[in-house]
Parts: sequence; structure tokens; C-alpha cells
Amino acid sequence: MADQHAQSHEENRPTEIPAIRWDEPPEGPVLVLLDQTRLPAEEVELVCTDAPALVEAIRTLAVRGAPLLGIAGAYGVALAAARGFEVDDAADALASARPTAVNLSHGVRRAQAAHRAALVAGGDQKQAAEAALAAARALHKEDAEASARMAEHGLALLDELLPGGNHRILTHCNTGALVSGGEGTAFAVALAAHRAGRLRRLWVDETRPLLQGARLTAYEAARSGMAYTLLTDNAAGSLFSAGEVDAVLIGADRIAADGSVANKVGSYPLAVLARYHHVPFIVVAPVTTVDPDTLDGASIEVEQRAGHEVTELTAPQVPVAGAEAGGGIPVAPLGTQAYNPAFDVTPPELVTAIVTEEGAVSPVTTEALAELCARSRRVVGGQVDHP
Amino acid sequence: MADQHAQSHEENRPTEIPAIRWDEPPEGPVLVLLDQTRLPAEEVELVCTDAPALVEAIRTLAVRGAPLLGIAGAYGVALAAARGFEVDDAADALASARPTAVNLSHGVRRAQAAHRAALVAGGDQKQAAEAALAAARALHKEDAEASARMAEHGLALLDELLPGGNHRILTHCNTGALVSGGEGTAFAVALAAHRAGRLRRLWVDETRPLLQGARLTAYEAARSGMAYTLLTDNAAGSLFSAGEVDAVLIGADRIAADGSVANKVGSYPLAVLARYHHVPFIVVAPVTTVDPDTLDGASIEVEQRAGHEVTELTAPQVPVAGAEAGGGIPVAPLGTQAYNPAFDVTPPELVTAIVTEEGAVSPVTTEALAELCARSRRVVGGQVDHP
Repeated sequence: MADQHAQSHEENRPTEIPAIRWDEPPEGPVLVLLDQTRLPAEEVELVCTDAPALVEAIRTLAVRGAPLLGIAGAYGVALAAARGFEVDDAADALASARPTAVNLSHGVRRAQAAHRAALVAGGDQKQAAEAALAAARALHKEDAEASARMAEHGLALLDELLPGGNHRILTHCNTGALVSGGEGTAFAVALAAHRAGRLRRLWVDETRPLLQGARLTAYEAARSGMAYTLLTDNAAGSLFSAGEVDAVLIGADRIAADGSVANKVGSYPLAVLARYHHVPFIVVAPVTTVDPDTLDGASIEVEQRAGHEVTELTAPQVPVAGAEAGGGIPVAPLGTQAYNPAFDVTPPELVTAIVTEEGAVSPVTTEALAELCARSRRVVGGQVDHP
Repeated sequence: MADQHAQSHEENRPTEIPAIRWDEPPEGPVLVLLDQTRLPAEEVELVCTDAPALVEAIRTLAVRGAPLLGIAGAYGVALAAARGFEVDDAADALASARPTAVNLSHGVRRAQAAHRAALVAGGDQKQAAEAALAAARALHKEDAEASARMAEHGLALLDELLPGGNHRILTHCNTGALVSGGEGTAFAVALAAHRAGRLRRLWVDETRPLLQGARLTAYEAARSGMAYTLLTDNAAGSLFSAGEVDAVLIGADRIAADGSVANKVGSYPLAVLARYHHVPFIVVAPVTTVDPDTLDGASIEVEQRAGHEVTELTAPQVPVAGAEAGGGIPVAPLGTQAYNPAFDVTPPELVTAIVTEEGAVSPVTTEALAELCARSRRVVGGQVDHP
């Protein structure tokens, strides 16, 4: 069950209303999400009291972005446990709410493993629920720390690739504080460049069909005081052609063992443009995004979403006269079928570098990625992170 | 001055309400346009009684598409002449209503030259107005014929490049009967392939920000009974990557002497994707689109349009609650600046062929294009077409 609370703040920074938070009001524990479907028009919190409400929030993209989905999944398991629901069922439903982001199932399985381990060790339901919550909180904290380290490594890489600063960076979709326990992935690198006085401009792809760039990245860029310009995804080609892009920075939803990167649809065309124009194409993602069980790009399951996201225009929570089945204004003839993959896959040969909290991999090879993942397991403890 | 007439027809084909027609009701001659900003929701005619109304219709894209702009410009001059307005002023205003499509000024100057020639030959204002109208009608008819010949040449080229038929063709923006005296340019080729049983699927890019693909090409494809699928411009990369695109067919707004092609923004990224995937990238446009006075791509003036086309969602004439300055629903934070070029430029080395009514040029070279234009001048009479 989900309720909605509207909040009003003056001069909010993106982190003032966190993208996700655990709360324990007298009526029982809840998971509170910033409803991202309503940004930037309204800052509204969505309160989930059970796993099905969270599954719905994940499917409708009220909560989204690979790292945040992992955190949400872990808290979802903790919520089911704390509320006395069947934890394994909740975990399965959460893990499969969206297929592409590997972080989601990672987070879910981590909290589930902690819950199970507590029971196996002789704990009661309350102790097991506490263990699940502790796992979720640990993941949340680690993600914030990983975000800060990705920003450091990313900024160092930018300085190496593009000495002299004054970077004009193109980004796609949304990868800031709204997708993270910290300041995000690709956006966190751009933000670090901005704070270091080395960002000349952030080019923000609007990211059709759901406009995460226009709605969310522009919102985060504006609040961070960055120089940014919005453009249709179409117009990126003109910027490359005019020599106006120094680097592309994007996030990732899943990285296969061979370094193939699944990310928001539209990333692959940018990678091809970047290659054609000899511009670095940099992927920023936590190590948990690398899925050693997915061997290559062809093995990545790409979520296909409903056609009405393309055939109808929807806007953040503005009442629309003449709205159609999907809740939007029809722009194509009735009956039009749409091809609407949520993600695309960029092969490793088009990726200049993958930046993680453990450092950057460049060139991107199976061996280098495996080495990085092994290093990560040594750091955080393989049994917990890769149950 | 412009009035609006709504019409309702059952089972219209795209050509039943022509994109443009000259009419002479008792109250005086008028130019009647199908208002393309209101498609596919409504089929509404816009009646222009003077050149300023037509300039406004051109600027707001009620009438659009390179060949049709030429026809509209010529009729606009005829309208000014027939209504007794100052013809040269009207011609200048019309020719500069939009900067990129060379056809617009071609059409305007052709009717203007006919008007002037009639006066020089001793004709009165009425005879000069008739001469301007005759020039507009001749251009309209020639465009329809050119469209049919482009379709023939284009289909022959497709058969040569892709023997066996069963084509999956990707197109961008709108290039059918709505932009032409006939069945269009690139769309006319796809339509010819469909009629010949050789079209497996038309992939229709939605074409942000103004959605000419979703609104207009899907409308024309649906009415023609073609198998078509709409996609965000972003998703084209996934289709290329999956091997689902056999050829790209687009129109052109201006072709420089060296074969650089200005077309709707988003064309250039498709050209780069097509090259990366070894897929033919074919431009279909009448010879008048070639501008020998524009030496190369860098010399093409690209129209920059208002940012609100990107920062606000607008839909064809559906009343919208909460509409903003530009008449749409804001999707980006207030104050967001947008980069919004209407066109981009594809260099000749990325163009597999340019198909015109005089035949195809492949490879695209300055010399081959010049030869084609010379052939065209011999056919239609250089003095009239290139005054």
C-alpha cells in the first residue's frame, strides 16, 4: 500500500528530500520514496508499507536508476520482514520487478541472505528482520561511499584524457542523487568536475520517451548551479559534429562479463557518435553493476516497455484534457504500434573506460573487469556481496 | 489573414485533403492549407488571404516540408499579386520565412520572375498575377511528377542495393504527400516499395521535438496500409544493432554543391549509425533541393528554433491544463535553456546515394551532382528554374 505526502521546501537541494528513506512511525515501518514521476513539477513522497507497493513503484518508475533500485530492493525485503510478510515471496517479486538492472536483484538477495542467515543462526523473526534492515542500511551507506569514490576516479580519468579542464560533457538519462545513496554515478563525476571548476557545460539529453534528462537531470543540474543545456536526443549529433562535446558520461544498468554495457536506450547511438568523432565514451557504475553471470551483450535481457510511452505524451502530474488509455495525450494515430526498448547495449569496443568505485578499467576487457570485481570482493567480503 | 475550416471525412486517404490548394471563392482568391500542426487529431484547413498569413503558417509549421514550401511560396506570390499587394515585398517576406529549405526561395523567386516578366512584356497587373499563378501551378504539377519519378528511381536503387525485396526501411521526419504536390520524396519510395510488395516494415522515427514522424508519417503510413512501427529516435540504434534496418530513406531541405545534406535534426546520427552498420543511407529530394550557391555543409544556415519546443510538451491541438508560455506542459525546470537546431548536416561521404527525379547519384560527388543539375536545367529550362 502506498500513500502520497506532498512536501514544500524553499530552495531545496537535490539531497534535501532523499530519493529513498526508511522511517518508523508509530503505525509501523515504512519505506518512503521521492516520487520521480512527478518531478520537476512537484516533490511528492510515496510511502510504501509493503513489498507489492514497492514493486508497483519500481514498475511505474516512481523509484528508478540502477544503484537506487538495489537499495530499494534491499529495503523492500527488510520491509516485508518487519511487517511479518513472507520474505522469500517478497524477495522474488521485488527481484523480478524490472529485468535489466542487475543491482535490483543484488540488493534484494543481499537483504534476503542476511535475513536467512539470522534465522539459521537461531534468531527469531524480529532479529532476522533487523538483520535484513541492517543489510539494506549497509548497502545504502556503501552506495554513498562508492558514489564519492566513482566521482574521484572519474574526475582523475577526465583530467588524464582531457588535460586542461573546461570540459563540455554530454550525458544521457539521469544518474545523480536521484538514483543513488550518494550523488550518483556519471552525474557525480560531472558534479565533481563542476566543483573543481573544470566543467564548462553539461549537455543534457532529454532522454525519450520518459524524459529523465529533461525532468530529472536538468532538475539536479539546476540545483547544483551547473551550466547546463537541454537538447533532444536527436540534436546530440549536431553537437558532436560541431566539436562541442569533449566526453560522454553515462551510467549503466548491467555490465556483462565482457564489458558490454546495458544502459538507457539512446546510449548506444551516442557511443557510435563518440567513436566516429574520437570522443571518449565513459561509463560510470558501481562494481555491483558488473554481472559475471551474463557473459556478453547478447545475453542481457532488455526490458520492452508499453507502446503508449511513445504514442502518448505524458507530463509530470499535470492534469491533461483528452488523456488516453496510458494517461497521456495521443500524438500518433490510434492503433499505432511502438517499439519501446527501455535499454540498449553498447559493446566493449565502443567504451573508452568503465569507472567504478574500485578504479577505472580502460581498455575494457573481460580480464580487466574480472580483476576489478575480484578486488571488490576482497574489499567488501565476497560472501555478502555475491551470495 | 487566416481562417480555419474543420472538415470531416470518413476513411480519408492522405491525398483527399490536399496539403495545399488554390481556391477562388466569390470573396477573392485564397490559398488553402491542411494545418499540419493539428494532425493527426484533426484535419483542419487553414485559409490564407494574404502573404503575411502564409508567412505565419510557414513559421508555425502549419505548412512544412521542403518541396511543399516551394509550392506554397510560389502560390504566396501569386496570392499577393492577385490580391493587389506589393509583390516584391511579399516575395522577400516569404523567401525568408524559414532559412534552411532552399526550395522555399526557389518557388518564391520563380513566381516572382514570372510576374515581373509579364509586366516587362507589357502585361497589366491582372495578366502579371495570372502569370505568377501559372508559375505556381506549373511548379505544383512538376513537383507531383518529380515525386513519381523519384519513387521510380528510388525503388530501382533499392532493388539494386537490396536484391530480393522484403525491405525494412527506417525513415525520419515526414516526407510524404503532406510535403509535396505528389506523394513526397523518401516516403514516396517506401510507398512504391509497399505497392510492389517489397516493403516488410517501415520504421518511423518519432522525430523530436515536433514529432513529425509520430504525428504525420505514422498517419500517412496508416492510411496507406503499410506495416509500420513507431519508435523514439533513441531506439533506432537498437534496431541497427539487431540487424533490423536494411536501408535508411530520408528527404532533404538543402543539398550543398558538394553533396552535404541538410535535413531534419536527427538525420546525421542516423547516417553515422548506418555507416557503422554498413546500411545504405539514401537521400531522396527533387533537383531543386540542390543549391549550387551553397558550396559545402559548413555554408548551410541551420535554423535554430525556440527552446520551448524542447522544454514543453505540446500536442496537436488538445486543450492542456497548466499550459506554459509556449502553449505546452513544462517538462523541464523553469528557466532551462535548450539547444534546438531544426536541422543537421550530413557530409557526402556518409550518403550512399541521392535520388532525384533525374536519377540517382552514387557515390555523391560535386561533379556528379553538378552534372545532374545541368541535366535538369536542360529538361525544364534553366531560365525559369534558376532565375
